[in-house]
Amino acid sequence: MWGIIATWRMSYEGVIKAKALLENGTDAGHGIEVAIKEVENYPDYKSVGYGGLPNENGIVELDAAYMDGDTFAIGAVAGVKNVKNPVSVAKQLSKDIFNIFLVGVGAEQYAQKEGFEKQNMLTSKVKTFYEKRVKEIYEKDLSPYDGHDTVGMVCLDQWGKMVTATSTSGLFMKKTGRIGDSALSGSGFYVDSEVGGATATGLGEDLMKGCISYEIVRLMSEGFHPQIACETAIGRFTEKLEKRTGRVGAFSVVAMDKTGNWGIATNVEFSFVVATQTQEPVIYLAYPEENGTARIEEASPEWLAAFAERIKHVIE
Amino acid sequence: MWGIIATWRMSYEGVIKAKALLENGTDAGHGIEVAIKEVENYPDYKSVGYGGLPNENGIVELDAAYMDGDTFAIGAVAGVKNVKNPVSVAKQLSKDIFNIFLVGVGAEQYAQKEGFEKQNMLTSKVKTFYEKRVKEIYEKDLSPYDGHDTVGMVCLDQWGKMVTATSTSGLFMKKTGRIGDSALSGSGFYVDSEVGGATATGLGEDLMKGCISYEIVRLMSEGFHPQIACETAIGRFTEKLEKRTGRVGAFSVVAMDKTGNWGIATNVEFSFVVATQTQEPVIYLAYPEENGTARIEEASPEWLAAFAERIKHVIE
Repeated sequence: MWGIIATWRMSYEGVIKAKALLENGTDAGHGIEVAIKEVENYPDYKSVGYGGLPNENGIVELDAAYMDGDTFAIGAVAGVKNVKNPVSVAKQLSKDIFNIFLVGVGAEQYAQKEGFEKQNMLTSKVKTFYEKRVKEIYEKDLSPYDGHDTVGMVCLDQWGKMVTATSTSGLFMKKTGRIGDSALSGSGFYVDSEVGGATATGLGEDLMKGCISYEIVRLMSEGFHPQIACETAIGRFTEKLEKRTGRVGAFSVVAMDKTGNWGIATNVEFSFVVATQTQEPVIYLAYPEENGTARIEEASPEWLAAFAERIKHVIE
Repeated sequence: MWGIIATWRMSYEGVIKAKALLENGTDAGHGIEVAIKEVENYPDYKSVGYGGLPNENGIVELDAAYMDGDTFAIGAVAGVKNVKNPVSVAKQLSKDIFNIFLVGVGAEQYAQKEGFEKQNMLTSKVKTFYEKRVKEIYEKDLSPYDGHDTVGMVCLDQWGKMVTATSTSGLFMKKTGRIGDSALSGSGFYVDSEVGGATATGLGEDLMKGCISYEIVRLMSEGFHPQIACETAIGRFTEKLEKRTGRVGAFSVVAMDKTGNWGIATNVEFSFVVATQTQEPVIYLAYPEENGTARIEEASPEWLAAFAERIKHVIE
């Protein structure tokens, strides 16, 4: 059995590419890297890689991570500028024993020395959007922070190896150097090939309060189906946060176990993509229900057309 | 009941200061900050704050974090230069909703804007040590990486509030921008005032593979005594790492629950400090046993004298 689950509609084209590799026996690590790079390279996806949203100073700073579920090897970069494919840098770092998580200038120096491609990650479209947003925030006294859609994937290959990876430009208008959960093991991602993997998207500041990806994998290790593991972890964590702080950020999680079963949980409208050996790639929409479950349906042709229209013309 | 547990002998003077505050009803957040700052400010403690060990380029880069167990509020900085008290910056960041984890230049800009004291954290003694070490590594082809003693503390105040905080200069001779587990929630620290808290020291690259602090707190929430929670978490994690990679870095953990009970686990010789309402401040030594437990004894006058001698004269 092979399989891949990924956050947000934007991961669809990458999942299609990964499917072609995985069904031919490619290693999960290569498959997931190809899939995430596809999202990073696509200029109209506004929260990941090239065309990602900038920080408060108009600079695109990126976070990414990679984890191998066979060995628990982790690589991560955060607050990194001018690197075309942060996920590839993270994946290479995971091969080392020391210095596996690099931030800021150090991460950029490493990428440069190792020959990774450089690129100014700000597109003219996003530059215009940023300038408009700065004006709006100033004029209307708005909270600057919205938009934090991380691409996160969990992948199982035919040989039973599982991996997870994430990539994001983080919170729009974030402070210079701000990092979220996407590069943090246990919060943004976690995987164990003998159990399964999970990854999260949403308000990183809240996600790191709960080690949510680790907890989902742990629940799967106790025999929970990925769907129940996601609902249980998110349910317990949401209840705790509400009780202690009265405030819960937006978050969504996806998980897959070692047999290719999958699940999700979310407290906002959320799209995601799944492909497995027994299931053609599908874009799903999830709508949170009162009881902590989510109503899941295939994205309609109308929804998909509206999405395509939206990303081509303006950033909202 | 109040109490505080802290990693390594170097935390003793800070614990004494915290004790004086906690027994007079001071908030745990203030108590722990005072204690950690004491370690940061002491020039002869070579792995934390002023006098900390530099990276491969001779620059001291620091990581620190703070977490409030009432609200799960977290603040963290990593890869930060020229900041006298990183723990205070982390504590202040924990009051925000967004941008709570800042790295590199962004963290330095924040500290500057907020009026935190600047300082070149490299002492002349450490500079000499660094230069000697660079020569040795070159001549003898040694692995540069050793020395990663994080100060981590868990603190309970008379009002039932629990907090945890960490501070470290990280791996000696690390690459620029390398961060370890100390600033990562769930790996380097975790606390829930309704349960207890835990913090870790050791090879961050391995510690972040297991979300070890989160796991210890979770085991305490299931009713485990802190000592059993520490041994169980470390035991299971060590077994997994050995099986999957055949290699386990040095690590040690300390934990305290909401009633002031405490525990530790370690796979190396490890010193730590405890003070509670019912126990005068004590410096303990822990020696790992074959079965995953540790033999714990009070540090002897001879050991303490040797320690004092060692840090005054040379850095080993």
